Amino acid sequence: MAMGRATVLVKPNHLETWDVPIPEPEAGGALVRVVIGGVCGSDLHITTGEAGVMPFPIILGHEGVGRVEKLGPGVSTDYAGIPVKVGDLVYWSPIALCHRCHSCTVLEETPCENSQFFEHAEKPNWGSYADYAWLPGGLAFFRLPEGADPEAVAALGCALPTVLRGFDRCGPVRVNETVVVQGAGPVGLSAVLVAAIAGAREIIVIDSVDKKLEIARQLGATATVSLADSPEERRRQIYDLCGHNGPNVVVEAAGYLPAFPEGVDLTGNHGRYIVLGLWGAIGTQPISPRDLTTKNLTVAGASFPKPQNYYQAMHLAARLQDRFPLAALVTHRFAIRDADKALAAVKAGEVIKAVIDPTL
Amino acid sequence: MAMGRATVLVKPNHLETWDVPIPEPEAGGALVRVVIGGVCGSDLHITTGEAGVMPFPIILGHEGVGRVEKLGPGVSTDYAGIPVKVGDLVYWSPIALCHRCHSCTVLEETPCENSQFFEHAEKPNWGSYADYAWLPGGLAFFRLPEGADPEAVAALGCALPTVLRGFDRCGPVRVNETVVVQGAGPVGLSAVLVAAIAGAREIIVIDSVDKKLEIARQLGATATVSLADSPEERRRQIYDLCGHNGPNVVVEAAGYLPAFPEGVDLTGNHGRYIVLGLWGAIGTQPISPRDLTTKNLTVAGASFPKPQNYYQAMHLAARLQDRFPLAALVTHRFAIRDADKALAAVKAGEVIKAVIDPTL
Amino acid sequence: MAMGRATVLVKPNHLETWDVPIPEPEAGGALVRVVIGGVCGSDLHITTGEAGVMPFPIILGHEGVGRVEKLGPGVSTDYAGIPVKVGDLVYWSPIALCHRCHSCTVLEETPCENSQFFEHAEKPNWGSYADYAWLPGGLAFFRLPEGADPEAVAALGCALPTVLRGFDRCGPVRVNETVVVQGAGPVGLSAVLVAAIAGAREIIVIDSVDKKLEIARQLGATATVSLADSPEERRRQIYDLCGHNGPNVVVEAAGYLPAFPEGVDLTGNHGRYIVLGLWGAIGTQPISPRDLTTKNLTVAGASFPKPQNYYQAMHLAARLQDRFPLAALVTHRFAIRDADKALAAVKAGEVIKAVIDPTL
Amino acid sequence: MAMGRATVLVKPNHLETWDVPIPEPEAGGALVRVVIGGVCGSDLHITTGEAGVMPFPIILGHEGVGRVEKLGPGVSTDYAGIPVKVGDLVYWSPIALCHRCHSCTVLEETPCENSQFFEHAEKPNWGSYADYAWLPGGLAFFRLPEGADPEAVAALGCALPTVLRGFDRCGPVRVNETVVVQGAGPVGLSAVLVAAIAGAREIIVIDSVDKKLEIARQLGATATVSLADSPEERRRQIYDLCGHNGPNVVVEAAGYLPAFPEGVDLTGNHGRYIVLGLWGAIGTQPISPRDLTTKNLTVAGASFPKPQNYYQAMHLAARLQDRFPLAALVTHRFAIRDADKALAAVKAGEVIKAVIDPTL
Repeated sequence: MAMGRATVLVKPNHLETWDVPIPEPEAGGALVRVVIGGVCGSDLHITTGEAGVMPFPIILGHEGVGRVEKLGPGVSTDYAGIPVKVGDLVYWSPIALCHRCHSCTVLEETPCENSQFFEHAEKPNWGSYADYAWLPGGLAFFRLPEGADPEAVAALGCALPTVLRGFDRCGPVRVNETVVVQGAGPVGLSAVLVAAIAGAREIIVIDSVDKKLEIARQLGATATVSLADSPEERRRQIYDLCGHNGPNVVVEAAGYLPAFPEGVDLTGNHGRYIVLGLWGAIGTQPISPRDLTTKNLTVAGASFPKPQNYYQAMHLAARLQDRFPLAALVTHRFAIRDADKALAAVKAGEVIKAVIDPTL
Repeated sequence: MAMGRATVLVKPNHLETWDVPIPEPEAGGALVRVVIGGVCGSDLHITTGEAGVMPFPIILGHEGVGRVEKLGPGVSTDYAGIPVKVGDLVYWSPIALCHRCHSCTVLEETPCENSQFFEHAEKPNWGSYADYAWLPGGLAFFRLPEGADPEAVAALGCALPTVLRGFDRCGPVRVNETVVVQGAGPVGLSAVLVAAIAGAREIIVIDSVDKKLEIARQLGATATVSLADSPEERRRQIYDLCGHNGPNVVVEAAGYLPAFPEGVDLTGNHGRYIVLGLWGAIGTQPISPRDLTTKNLTVAGASFPKPQNYYQAMHLAARLQDRFPLAALVTHRFAIRDADKALAAVKAGEVIKAVIDPTL
Repeated sequence: MAMGRATVLVKPNHLETWDVPIPEPEAGGALVRVVIGGVCGSDLHITTGEAGVMPFPIILGHEGVGRVEKLGPGVSTDYAGIPVKVGDLVYWSPIALCHRCHSCTVLEETPCENSQFFEHAEKPNWGSYADYAWLPGGLAFFRLPEGADPEAVAALGCALPTVLRGFDRCGPVRVNETVVVQGAGPVGLSAVLVAAIAGAREIIVIDSVDKKLEIARQLGATATVSLADSPEERRRQIYDLCGHNGPNVVVEAAGYLPAFPEGVDLTGNHGRYIVLGLWGAIGTQPISPRDLTTKNLTVAGASFPKPQNYYQAMHLAARLQDRFPLAALVTHRFAIRDADKALAAVKAGEVIKAVIDPTL
Repeated sequence: MAMGRATVLVKPNHLETWDVPIPEPEAGGALVRVVIGGVCGSDLHITTGEAGVMPFPIILGHEGVGRVEKLGPGVSTDYAGIPVKVGDLVYWSPIALCHRCHSCTVLEETPCENSQFFEHAEKPNWGSYADYAWLPGGLAFFRLPEGADPEAVAALGCALPTVLRGFDRCGPVRVNETVVVQGAGPVGLSAVLVAAIAGAREIIVIDSVDKKLEIARQLGATATVSLADSPEERRRQIYDLCGHNGPNVVVEAAGYLPAFPEGVDLTGNHGRYIVLGLWGAIGTQPISPRDLTTKNLTVAGASFPKPQNYYQAMHLAARLQDRFPLAALVTHRFAIRDADKALAAVKAGEVIKAVIDPTL
């Protein structure tokens, strides 16, 4: 039986490179050869065990662009109804929705109650730190549009779908709105990009790393604010730019607990605060409920984008790849066997986006 | 010059009954003889000074039903375009929107940046603890529909418009949703009523006063939970009734700080938490931002209903007055000169709804 | 092999009663014993061939309440995640969504591009004019809530989900809105019911059959207008009741082409016109596009309710069955072998709702 | 008394240049010196009398950018709350909303029932074919942002606010959607621009004038279709580009009756058809209501943008003036005394945008 390599998390903080069988695609599914496996910040939390207990051993990687190796029985289109054939480039959502729970059927919301993020490494597996990803029936994949650069699509990983999901829940950025983004990692950069094309007047990014702030400017940020300043100073700078009503939208993309009360405080009258980064950090933070009523705020969290958000993100990246330096956001490439180094580089904060490249 | 009586808050905790001139209506405005002046819980906070410094001396009262005494120049309809004449019963919103600030024009949101809640007692005045209310041009008033009982309209005061505003911001209750209401004062009872007519499956009310919980049941609550139980026990009871996904909607109508983290905790997956009562309480409470992302929550505060919410509330009360015991919610009536007793009764928690009746 | 009876449409206008095998449920599916098979007006159009060519022979019937006979492998809950077991009463949507076309994935809209309304009579089949319905995996079914009367759930058939879908697309009826309903068949009666519980001020129904108008009144209509009057007279009566701005909402539930231009004409300023009945009638009607711009209208068609609309309809019926005479809407019951008589009775306009009862 | 010139429509088809007094601004209002008065296609219909009887004599012109000459008592900000002073450039909405009709208060919709589009030429007047425009209290004006080019703001006139209003009513264009625009006049070009920045995949414009189609391409159109082809051929070309589901959005910007049934026919499954141009053309057109139900369509008309749409349009133009050749759309300039020539040029179809320049 043909075998492929995969990065397996055997238990917390213990990675190995395994040779695993290349399974046949199931009905409704597809087997793809991985072209790019994105390294997400959450992979770090999964590896350390902070994100909770997983069904170890698991194959890491929930972001990917690949090339169709074989289609399962009955498959002739992608999940948007576009014809697909062997050799096509595809991008996929990492979770197959069950379509038969209360969240899926009655509310049309994610996360689905029965979806499965990871599969045991010895079973057919859609982890993308691997030579092949086996996409089960029901896991949405989409053919890349003509001319799309796989690196541009992969560059913002699951961050761009997450941001699109957040704006779906909270209402889109409107022309001339003012937007503050807490954090300039992939989620924050995605928020900058989405705000920029929507015609935001001010897009102000807060981070401590100059290099990231510089990239935020390339993607449309109109101003940056340093974490080195005091919260009071940051607030003053932001209100100077936005006016006395304050920012219309604040996006939490920091994944850092103290960002939360600062975000509530920063959000202007009638504003929206979208919490995206704080899905893993355990702990509470004090906020004033009176801020919500007197400022007429909406605070919404989002996670687990829908398949449609992956579809939109892929097309958005393809459409913007020439206007913004998206592919250049991929600053680090690692072989499957070097996944540990990839995660270390992410941890060190030196990368914008790292990817696994199975050809290395 | 003709004079009328009014309850004047001269300074915090100091009420007097004054004889004030009865002014002529201005262009676009109206002079109304007060039939019922609602006593709102916030009047208590205003009187004690907790709600901040006011332009003392002020005439108390922001809720009212009255009879048109005289219409200002150019006025032949109410603010919904319905013909109005001397002698008609009207209900009014307590704030005139400016229609020329960012909130009014660009966002169509309240509060308006230039609106004025109170006026100095010696000026023409729309405070409703009085014989007459002078409604300035721009302050929306609406003719009561035929057959509407003024007490039914006044019974839920500004609480019902506030609840309607909250659901406008967060999406309405849908058929078969499960709703938890924290607090069974006027805001909580209004939320029960709105959830009941929308076809909610469970409407669970939390309070410590049995009499209020009993009235909540009359307005549609399907279950009640006591504050005497522990938070863990309350949560258990609520999740037993709502199922493992938890409540779809939680309404904060307690005005009590610890209700806030409990509300975030209670709100179920994909749920909405609407914060209405905590507009006055100063202080912070610890919540977990991770609850927002992993449960896919929306938390929204609302205050200062729009004129359209007063219009809707009036019509809703008129439509429901025979099906629910709305007028019976008015349990206490006080003369203008006894406003202090009215506020004391509210403070003692013995009333469902107290009103000022100028005929007493 | 055990056999069950079914009404088979062999070709247009040719019905037969067949004995068909009772299949085993497939993975994800269920086999149910039909308790009530609803007779829908569209079954008539399907039988005559007006609704287009079908994959004859087909088993008629797309509405049903049944009792679980056997669950397919892996099935332990209904499609809202509620535990389900043999013997439970269930209600189902007649179409399995594919969840992998543009409509399903990208737009979350129905109709799905790959769904299948009918199946060949000799294959496992979900047609409900039968002893058994075989629900394939992916076809949403929902357990009836405790105490729900199957007749109350079946009484409005697919009409109530269709109306709920229409209001989802156009915005719900709001308190004090004025609603006109063209036609008092199941779709029209469903619209009356939904408008009534939403607090509409006027619900005016147009039909030519007095008995149907009387039932409309029982379900909440506040006035009725006769088709015997001229269109001008109907318009006059309706505008007298609604006021000079005209109806906020008009629902087309007549399935009769000339209703369409009359509906556009009747709809008031800023109003919504929801077209539900005219899915089968072939032909054009003249309307004035200027009516859309100067009256600021929205006109929306809807068909093929989502599974969530079936879920909502079932719960709505269960909740309202004691307040409104829903079960009494089922005026005619027929045996499987008498399906031709059922359709003839529908055609003659003598029924409110006819059903197939396999026990007869 | 100081006098200014104005183009007065004395009666249908009879224009004169009058000297009119320059009034003092009223409370809440402003007097502005007109910098650019836009010539709108509807001015032509007004002049010929097709748009109905007006309160003749009237000063023409409902589009304008001007410089504040004097502010009325109490005015220190524009209608978005931005400080404004003598000498500032402002852009205005041509209608003062009453804020006390059913449309304004209850529905928050336009047109307002009491608003006044034109004023008698001998009264203080906001017509913009004039040296001065007197903006009454309540007529929203907005300060141009720093660096905004008045010609870029004026270039799309009331067409861009109208398009923004249309998308507000029907939902915005989403990434990768396909859009068809009927007509390449100012409304059509505005629709192209809005679709382009929203990330539409295909923006296909139909017109008969090559020069206009070329400009549509400069503003973002991806393809053009000629009116010289047959409707069948146009449909074939459009479906080839959009795919079998057809366009997601069709915008009627033709003002030509036969465009209406073609638009309904062109709109794809689940699509939106926004009717903007047909506010003046009197007559009916045959459409098939079945198209609405089976294609799940929404058809909405819009006219009379809200003040917020003028605000958004102004900011959008200012933000895009460097990326798109907006100012260059102003192809013809006329003196006040040559208003008849301006209208003749519009009628001849030779202009993209004509304006009145009072300095000529």
